[in-house]
Amino acid sequence: MEQYNVVIVGAAGAVGQELIRILEERNFPVGELRLCATTRSAGKEMLFRGKPYIVEATTPDSFQGMDIALFAGGAASKEFGPAAVERGAVVIDNSSNFRMDPAVPLVVPEVNPEDVKWHKGIIANPNCSTIQMVVALKPIHDAARIKRVVVATYQAVSGAGREGIDELVSQTGDVLAGGEASPKVFQYQIAFNLIPHIDVFMDMDYTKEEWKMVRETQKILHDDSVAITATTVRVPVYRSHSEAINIETEKKVTAAEAKKLFEEFPGIIVLDDPANKKYPMPLFTSNLDEVFIGRIREDNSIPNGLNIWVVADQIRKGAATNAVQIAELVVKYGSFLK
Amino acid sequence: MEQYNVVIVGAAGAVGQELIRILEERNFPVGELRLCATTRSAGKEMLFRGKPYIVEATTPDSFQGMDIALFAGGAASKEFGPAAVERGAVVIDNSSNFRMDPAVPLVVPEVNPEDVKWHKGIIANPNCSTIQMVVALKPIHDAARIKRVVVATYQAVSGAGREGIDELVSQTGDVLAGGEASPKVFQYQIAFNLIPHIDVFMDMDYTKEEWKMVRETQKILHDDSVAITATTVRVPVYRSHSEAINIETEKKVTAAEAKKLFEEFPGIIVLDDPANKKYPMPLFTSNLDEVFIGRIREDNSIPNGLNIWVVADQIRKGAATNAVQIAELVVKYGSFLK
Repeated sequence: MEQYNVVIVGAAGAVGQELIRILEERNFPVGELRLCATTRSAGKEMLFRGKPYIVEATTPDSFQGMDIALFAGGAASKEFGPAAVERGAVVIDNSSNFRMDPAVPLVVPEVNPEDVKWHKGIIANPNCSTIQMVVALKPIHDAARIKRVVVATYQAVSGAGREGIDELVSQTGDVLAGGEASPKVFQYQIAFNLIPHIDVFMDMDYTKEEWKMVRETQKILHDDSVAITATTVRVPVYRSHSEAINIETEKKVTAAEAKKLFEEFPGIIVLDDPANKKYPMPLFTSNLDEVFIGRIREDNSIPNGLNIWVVADQIRKGAATNAVQIAELVVKYGSFLK
Repeated sequence: MEQYNVVIVGAAGAVGQELIRILEERNFPVGELRLCATTRSAGKEMLFRGKPYIVEATTPDSFQGMDIALFAGGAASKEFGPAAVERGAVVIDNSSNFRMDPAVPLVVPEVNPEDVKWHKGIIANPNCSTIQMVVALKPIHDAARIKRVVVATYQAVSGAGREGIDELVSQTGDVLAGGEASPKVFQYQIAFNLIPHIDVFMDMDYTKEEWKMVRETQKILHDDSVAITATTVRVPVYRSHSEAINIETEKKVTAAEAKKLFEEFPGIIVLDDPANKKYPMPLFTSNLDEVFIGRIREDNSIPNGLNIWVVADQIRKGAATNAVQIAELVVKYGSFLK
């Protein structure tokens, strides 16, 4: 079996560590592996398939001889993405740097796998809250054309990486002990609170996170006619984002039909049996790769409406798993640069 | 100044205690005060205006000589409501027992105060999640007629009373210490989790909580043509419910116009200055009486759409404050039974 040289940039962070774990779990045909990060994390030892690797500071030469470069997020792909491509590595980028670039495919493997084929060196991984929503929307859109989506999110602190998790742990302890919370990562205390503010504010007083859910979804579906509005909210949960999604379709879809469409779609697990208290919850979907859908109901406030509740581990399906699935498509289609 | 004899049924619970506090704070003209509860809480001492009162077990005679009976919730109003009315006390009931009874007004004082006038002995206090939503909807409905509402809630554990709060505190401590959570009040662990299930499941797989938001809102607005769909979710927050509300109106309302309408409406405080990180959050609205509105945005997924984020202390405005405000209207209109 052919093997491919893989470099992970940002290996020491929450998404980076998960990328290593998922390459192992999915038995990706890794030849040489290189782990890179900022100079701050360089020198750290990490394990892959039981073998220790030393994290190196990223330089343009980190990409020499590599087939695939997985960027965990942040500004690194802006700095090193072009250098990686020049050296022949296909960049799979989890940051927002290239997502809306018309020359860069934005891919969710269950939804638009074929878009991998036209990449010019960089393939973008969508935002976590977009990925799980678009997986849920796709089978409904194919069956009945989606006209409009209203979504409210409940996003875990790990969306802000390892520091987000640490902040929730330490704040919760401080508050329980009767002390004060001192927010650093988030705008305000997140323990026992909600913050309706993720990423920066932009046009029309929507946050960048909210606009991502609109524009990335339209790009992935190749359909700007799908109207979307979003409210994104940080909640005191460690892992897994949840979304209350209201969908208006052109053709009627009953709850039973929607359930069947979801069940037949790859990457979705339906958990929807209210009588037996079965519905997705972040506590029980963490460390899993699927998008979990429940509370599937017709919305009788309009003729063709549906309500669904969608939960997924945003570090896995919302980031690392999706990126490795894209790498698998690059292998499948042979879309390498050399 | 005339004084009125008041009995509180369920005085020992979270809402009951808040009722006592609010009668004090608002300087309600209380003559004789009687505190009643189940036999389990009888004998407990509680303070009102610095004076100790002993909680008595509720009996039909508890209402003898009383002008107003405030029922904090639960089944008590079913058992004792008619007896209270027979003895001449106006019942203000925070339970769901009589809310949808066409012979019982369902009142939010900022929205439909006049409905107090036609009561026949019982006035119902709406559900907490309904109260804060309908306060926010009313000025928009008056100005531009609301056609449809899509709401997703983020509801605090104190919606389940004192036991809900205790469960979040103890579970959070257990989980932080590496132990197991043992859910009693809620269906699953609520610490660091979300549960999309409040009250029992009913028609079309919606919960009773979700239907309350639909039907109570229509009753309070006297307008069944307002189409509403809801998804209600329990979150690990102590106090104050939050709601992401999407509104479609008949006439266009700009964000600036909506903000002005809210600012001019009684009982609403607008907190909406994204550039300065100003938006409502449950941590900072608890123990306050107003409905806080922020994240006011036009929704360009439809011609006449608005998104708002609404937070209020559901034990105060969502229950006790609203009930005492109703009692104030009974005094104002002189709508006593004797």
